[in-house]
Parts: sequence; structure tokens; C-alpha cells
Amino acid sequence: MKYVRFHTITIISGLLLVGACRPAAPPVTPQPATKPAVKPIDLTPRVVPQPASLTRGTGAPFVITATTGIVVDAGAGQVQPIGETLAMLLRKSTSFPVLVSQAGGTAAPGTIRLRLANDRQSLGEEGYELTVASDSVVLVAYRPAGLFHGVQTIRQLLPSAIESEIGLERDWAIPALTIADQPRFPWRGGMIDVGRHFLTVREVQQFIDLLALYKMNVLHIHLTDDQGWRIQINSRPRLTAVGSLSQMGGGPGGFFTQQDYTDIVRYAQARYITVVPEIEMPGHSWAALTTYPELTCKPRPPDPYTGPDLGWSALCPDKEVTYAYIDDVIKEVAAITPGPYLHIGGDEVASLSDSQYVKFIGRAQDIVNKYGKVMIGWEEITKAKLKPATIAQMWKSDSVTAALSYGSKLILSPATHAYLDMQYTPETELGLHWSGYVEVRDAYDWNPATFAPGLTESNVLGIEAPIWGETVRNIGAVNYMSVPRLPALAEVGWTPQAGRDWDSFRSRIAAHAPRWRYLGVNYYPSPQIPW
Amino acid sequence: MKYVRFHTITIISGLLLVGACRPAAPPVTPQPATKPAVKPIDLTPRVVPQPASLTRGTGAPFVITATTGIVVDAGAGQVQPIGETLAMLLRKSTSFPVLVSQAGGTAAPGTIRLRLANDRQSLGEEGYELTVASDSVVLVAYRPAGLFHGVQTIRQLLPSAIESEIGLERDWAIPALTIADQPRFPWRGGMIDVGRHFLTVREVQQFIDLLALYKMNVLHIHLTDDQGWRIQINSRPRLTAVGSLSQMGGGPGGFFTQQDYTDIVRYAQARYITVVPEIEMPGHSWAALTTYPELTCKPRPPDPYTGPDLGWSALCPDKEVTYAYIDDVIKEVAAITPGPYLHIGGDEVASLSDSQYVKFIGRAQDIVNKYGKVMIGWEEITKAKLKPATIAQMWKSDSVTAALSYGSKLILSPATHAYLDMQYTPETELGLHWSGYVEVRDAYDWNPATFAPGLTESNVLGIEAPIWGETVRNIGAVNYMSVPRLPALAEVGWTPQAGRDWDSFRSRIAAHAPRWRYLGVNYYPSPQIPW
Repeated sequence: MKYVRFHTITIISGLLLVGACRPAAPPVTPQPATKPAVKPIDLTPRVVPQPASLTRGTGAPFVITATTGIVVDAGAGQVQPIGETLAMLLRKSTSFPVLVSQAGGTAAPGTIRLRLANDRQSLGEEGYELTVASDSVVLVAYRPAGLFHGVQTIRQLLPSAIESEIGLERDWAIPALTIADQPRFPWRGGMIDVGRHFLTVREVQQFIDLLALYKMNVLHIHLTDDQGWRIQINSRPRLTAVGSLSQMGGGPGGFFTQQDYTDIVRYAQARYITVVPEIEMPGHSWAALTTYPELTCKPRPPDPYTGPDLGWSALCPDKEVTYAYIDDVIKEVAAITPGPYLHIGGDEVASLSDSQYVKFIGRAQDIVNKYGKVMIGWEEITKAKLKPATIAQMWKSDSVTAALSYGSKLILSPATHAYLDMQYTPETELGLHWSGYVEVRDAYDWNPATFAPGLTESNVLGIEAPIWGETVRNIGAVNYMSVPRLPALAEVGWTPQAGRDWDSFRSRIAAHAPRWRYLGVNYYPSPQIPW
Repeated sequence: MKYVRFHTITIISGLLLVGACRPAAPPVTPQPATKPAVKPIDLTPRVVPQPASLTRGTGAPFVITATTGIVVDAGAGQVQPIGETLAMLLRKSTSFPVLVSQAGGTAAPGTIRLRLANDRQSLGEEGYELTVASDSVVLVAYRPAGLFHGVQTIRQLLPSAIESEIGLERDWAIPALTIADQPRFPWRGGMIDVGRHFLTVREVQQFIDLLALYKMNVLHIHLTDDQGWRIQINSRPRLTAVGSLSQMGGGPGGFFTQQDYTDIVRYAQARYITVVPEIEMPGHSWAALTTYPELTCKPRPPDPYTGPDLGWSALCPDKEVTYAYIDDVIKEVAAITPGPYLHIGGDEVASLSDSQYVKFIGRAQDIVNKYGKVMIGWEEITKAKLKPATIAQMWKSDSVTAALSYGSKLILSPATHAYLDMQYTPETELGLHWSGYVEVRDAYDWNPATFAPGLTESNVLGIEAPIWGETVRNIGAVNYMSVPRLPALAEVGWTPQAGRDWDSFRSRIAAHAPRWRYLGVNYYPSPQIPW
């Protein structure tokens, strides 16, 4: 037999399959006489982020076979789709039927059980406990998000080939072990900048897939900037009719309809990821100002801007029409955003006085709160008086003290460690380097709780990795800049400081490269990693 | 100054730009004290495909500066957009204004001139002549496609950084040389399979970008297969309403509206690429048969199919409803396809008798011709009597003699050399290997005109590189399997056999990797290439 015979998923398809193979006639050149030998499996767990606690068992591994099934809690509506997600992953690569059934009586041996436990409050909103023995896999969580994260751990404990879209022959084994795991920080995010270079819904979904694989739980979308406006606002249709047509470098731009945005939100929700929309104000607002020139203090010709400069555009804080405008926009964005947050940017305003800026942020905060959302802003907003619930996002760390003085919590995105648009080295083609070069180890080796004076384990909400869009025009470029730094930052946000270590990380992440190749994820083959 | 000051494109934007830079305050960790030195340029031409004739000049290179302009033929409507395409490329990375003007009087020194010459018929439909001296670049062609290909040569003669989306400081020099170039074969294509895994319009456009960079001129889209139907047919709305919802591995599927398809066609046209739609028949048709079970000879339960098996599905050649159905479909697809070709598949039909198959292909050929298109089919169609204009696409090479007996020309896509879904090596995660492993050199080292008995330089229409969709779920995976084999095959199709050489190719293509990184193109870092 000269060619691979695929397993046929007859139980699923219900078809009587004819076993025809391509090609019908022998190819021209000599072929390998036999299929490659089944590869032996390395059972060393290489999970990223490193679980809070992991104990290897001494017994035989759990092996997925044609009879392996998944059992989910009866009556727990959110568990069933998580079980189906795991089943679909396993079906594709193993070609086994992997039936999902609801718990009732005793679970048969050889099953993977997903269970919510009301009495395991100690596992928190996102924690889970995973026990793998030769005859069972048991995943327990207090909340569905914990089960979802636990499924990502199961995924990473399996061979990389589990990511294949077609059936392969492997020993599909999960090592015997016990994991008790939950995140260090509740906020672990990635940010994409569709303002400078628009990305399609499908591209954003691919970024969400990456966040989910590494147990991140926030997608911050920078929806507007000088170079383009990317979200449909029904009461202000010209924002997209005019403001969406430009982008960095002169390309065609684009925007999300509210339905597109909702599709993104739902895709994220299914992966326990909260979408945080950012509408930049008062600065980084030129795309809006080309449609509403009356919102500037000093009108300029409303030509689209496609260059890289910063700080020069601003809504005028001294005009009431400005607040009517942001009320319209925030109202609609809040209405289509189920998550509790709305980000107003607030950074890099070089063309307003401090008093103008402070006045503006105060009014914006009131409007965001009026529509039921918690305001987030880049750390410059700490110049204004913040409410304690308002969140400051640090990127250059000169405003920590001010934020803490209001009782605000902080999201840490220090450019020197967490900006995914910084070049890895001087040789990196994509990216900028105004905050230096950020190799993988720079992204990994820092402690959020001690990063700046005043920070503690509890006033840090978490970490977020922004990838600004000046140089990245598509998801391939976004992935190249994100991987492997985004997984490194995921571990910074998830794993207790004492539980993580660069040498451990670099050896674990090296084993993820085949997984990225199956997934079509472009990555930077850093010389710091023993691939 | 600690951070990059970008050039500002003031002439284009018309704005009074404030020179603010991010960040306003010094970052936390030490920064490089100075920006990296301007890199010296290697002026060795590394063009792929290798031009038919290239003579290095002895003079100084042409250097692009702030005053460099592009001059296009006055009155030649198709030249202006090609000039604009080149100008936009140069503007982004150089930050120079690069004005495009129409020829009149004497061209100023320091210009790049694009000109159509009615008397240069010898350059053919796609050829061009490029002369670079220290004070001018002159590009001449007989047809616009030649100018477009010549612009790709100019692009590749410039440093890789020309692909940057933001302004960089470089010596933007083009070496002094003379090139006279035209393709060996008129058909140089790539094929994507959106039937098995759907790709978005934007993903298809990214594949078109890759074809254009390497002077390929055909995009063949495999629009339908057992796993999904991907093109809107107004007279048969259930084809997409039902047949588009499935894909390999169980994902969500998808389809192109006729407007989406038209957007793809126009994007390709602007790059002088002809779109060839493929509607698979009579086999590989299960997605259609789930919506019209009456079109099978032996009805089966109409469940979606998401597995990898082949050959089992077929439209029934013995029923008139079958021909009414394909008439409806071909009529609409022909109407939205400006190119002269329509591909009907025709491969791998294991469930029909030869006489059924032959009858079907004959009728299909009549219908395709009725709607004004030239029929193309995989080489199995040579079992039927073909008209001389009909084209056979070889993939396993047992039907060359039959095709030639009808006077048909051949497109060569031998799986052993041109199938981009074959694994590079046994270690490649993506892809299949039923026709063996296809490393870059395998893709490169073959001669279409001598590949099978009976083939000649003139009865080979050209080559095409299909990437079947079993394992590739997104453009990142498509790119990984395509690059660098697609450029290798582009050279097989473009460069005269005597003018190309593996050692030359491998050293030239190595220099393209930085370009791919700028473009966000995932690629396979083959050990055969001296990166």
C-alpha cells in the first residue's frame, strides 16, 4: 500500500464509505514503501503557562482509544459545549468517535470526565483540578472557565499532533499526574490595534484562538486611531463611511459592523475571554475628526492620515458637541459589549493643556459609568481624579502612585516587557524599538507585583500584551511578533512567581513549535529557545 | 534622542504635523543610546523567477531619494494604476513623496519611467525590458501585464526593507543593469482548495499577493468538494444555505457571495492574474448532493461529510436533472467570471462506470462551451472525447498521450513536484505524503517540456501548483506549505530551462526570507536553502 489510509469516521458521518484513495494510479517517481513508523511519545508535561501545582504520577498514562468517551455533568448547561470542544479536537486528529454523554450512574472506565463542583469554591473563577490515571481523566472546576482552562491543559499534555486536522496514527497518551491550578492574576490580556491596520473578523478570531490556548482571558481591541475608525456607530454613520477608509501606509482600511463585533464577542465568550473595546479619546482621534471637523479646537483640513506620528490630534474638551459625540459613541459600544469594561484610551495627548485634558477625562468617566461600564484608560488618565473602580493601564510606569492614590487597580503593560510590537533584536524586520528590544526572556523575566514602587500582589489586576499596529498588516505578522512572547506573558500572568523559571519555560515552550506549525501560526524562532 | 523619529509624509497628508513621539516620558529600562546604523546594501540582484536575460551594468546604482518621481505614459489608462502601485510601495518604506506624473516633454533625471511600446511586440503579452542607470530607471513593455511584472522585478531589486509598512532609513538603491525578460510558459498558476477548509476573501487576497510577487498569472480556486460548497448560486440557494455549513474536521465552513467572488476577481485582475473557478463534477460533489439527493444514482443519507476520503461521491450521469443542475451552476459561474476558463474537476470518480463518466464529461463540456468558456479538467477527463480547445490538467501523468491525441494542451501539476500539500519531509506537521515528500529542490528540479513522453515546449500550456486543503486551515498554513516551493515553481514556469539552476535559485531565494517576514508570510525554513 503506497499511500496513507485514513481512518474513516463512520459513526459520525453515517455514510457507507468507499475506501478509495488518491491517486488511483501509481505516481511517477518512487514512493516510500511503507508509511512512517508510529512515533514514540515523550510524556514529559510541557504545559504553558506552568500550572500552580503539578505532581507526576507513577502509573501508566491514560491512552485515548476508539472507545474513549467524554462524560459531562448532567444539567450543567455550560459543561456540554466545553465537552464538545474537547471532543471535536480529539476526533479530528485521532479519528476516534469520542462520544460526549451526560453523567448518570457510574462513569465507565476509559472516560474523560468534566465536572463542576459547587463545593470547590477554593478553585476560584478560573481554577481547575485535573487527575489523570491509566483508566480515567477527571477534570473538576468551580466555574466553567476553570473547565475550559483545564481542557487547554489536557490539550497541551497530548502530543502536538492532537492539533492535526486529519486523522493520524499516534499513541494518544496523557501522562499520569495531578494538577491543581489557578491563575495568579485575574486579568491576562492581549491587545490588537485594528485602527492602524485593519484585521478581519477571521484574523481576530485566530488571535483569540492563541489567547485561549495559553489561558488568557481578555481581548482588548483598539478600535479607533488617527489612521482609521473600525466600528459601526448607527447614530454616527459617517464615522465608518468616511473614517474607516484609511489605514497606515495607505491601504484600504475597513471596519466591523456591529454584527461583526458581536461575532467576535461571541467567539471570545465561547473561549471564556472578555472583549474590552477601546475608543480612543481625546487623542489618537484623527479618523473621527476627519468626519467631524467641528470637534477640534483648531480645525485643520480633514485629510486622511496614514503616517506613524503620534500625539497631535485631539477632540476639543471645551465644546459641548464633543461630549454629545462621545455620549453617542459610548452608548452604542456599551450596548453591544456584554463585558463590564470600556477603554477610552487617553494616552499621548500633546496638543491639549493639562486642565483641558483633566476636564475631558472626568466627563468621559461619567459617560462611561452612565452606560454601566467600568472605565479603563492608559495611565495618563491618572492626571484626572479617578473613581476607585476605574482602572489604569500602565505602559511607561510613571503614574503608579497616582493611580493607587485613587484606589484604582492597575493593568501592567510595560513597553519594555509586554509590548509585542517591540522588535526582538535589531535584526527583526517588523516592529519598532523606541523602548528597546524585547527578546523572549525580556517578556518573561519580570515580576508584576514588584515592578514599580507601590505595586503589590493585590493592587495589580494583571498583565496585558499590546501589539500596536504600525508595522503589522495581517495575522501572520501579528503572530510572528506574538509568539513566543505572548505565551511568556501568559505565564507571567498565570503562574505564581515562585513557580516559574526561565530555564523551565524555555524548555517547555520549545516543544510548542510543532503545535504552532499544525495550527498555521507564524512564530519567531528565537535563539534563546532550544527548539 | 532615544527613539526613532519617523519621516513625515507631509506632502501626502497635507497636515501640519506635530513631531511628538511615543513615549512622552523616558521608559524604565536602559535604551540603546543611538539608533542602529544605516545598513549597507548588497546590490547583487536576487530576482525570482530568474529573468530570461540580465546584464549587470558597470555604473553607479539608481538611488531613490526625496525627489524621485514616477513618470507614466500619457493616455495609457492601464499604466497609471501600475505606476501608483509602485509609488505606494516606495512611499510606505522610504517616506518619500514619490509623485506619479504623466509623460510630457523630457522626463527629468532621477525618474522611474513606465512605458508601453506598440512596436515592441517581441516582448509578448507579459514580457518587459528594464534598464537601470544611475540617473534613470526605464521599464518598457508591449502590454500592461509586462509592466506589472517589471514592477515586481524593481521591487525585488530593492532592499527587502522596501516591503516595510513604515518609513525606514536605508540606501534605497537599484543596481545598474539591463533586463530583457518574458515567461517560458503562458500559464503559471497556484490553486487553493476552499472546499475542504474555507478561506476568507482576505486570505485569498494574501495568496494572490504571493502569486503576484513571483509573476504567476493564474489563481485556480477549487470552490466545491465533498466537504463544502463555497460559491453563491442564486438559482440554487440551498447549495450555500446547506452545503456551505461543513468543512474538513468539523469546523464552521463558509462561502463566497457573488460579490465576494467578484472582489477576488478584481483584486486578481489588478495584479494581472486570471481567476479560474473550479466546480467539481461528477465526483467530489457530496456537499451539493446533501442539498439535492435526487442527483445521485443511489441515494444515501444526506449528512455533511467532514472526513478525508475520496472517490465515493458522484452526480448521476443517467438523469436529466443532473444536467439541468450543472447548467444552472455553470451559467452563473461563467457570468461572474471574466476570464475565459471554467474548470469542472472530473478527477477521482470511483463510483461510476467508464461509460457513465465519459457521457457526463461530454455533456459538461458542451454546457461549459455554451456559456462561452474553455473547459479545463483534471487529466481523467481525457477518457472522454475532448475538443481541441479543452485543457487537461495533469497530476499523475498517465493521460498525456490521450490529451495530445485530441489536440488538447496540458497544464502540468505533477504531484511529485508541484503539489504544495505534500509534506516537505517526514517531519513536516502539515500535509500528506501519498506521492512522497516534496522538498524545495523536488519542486524546482524538473523540466515541464520533457516530463512525460509526448510533451514539448509548445503543447505544455504551463505549470500549476495546487495546495489541497485537507490539513491547511488558514493562510498561515497555506503560506507555510507554499513558501518557498511556490517561488520555485514560479521559476520553473517562467525562466527558460537553460537559464535556471538549483544552486543559483537556492542562493537567490535565501535572500527573500526577510521580505516574507516584512509581509507576514509564514514559510518553511528548508535546510536545503542557505538562509
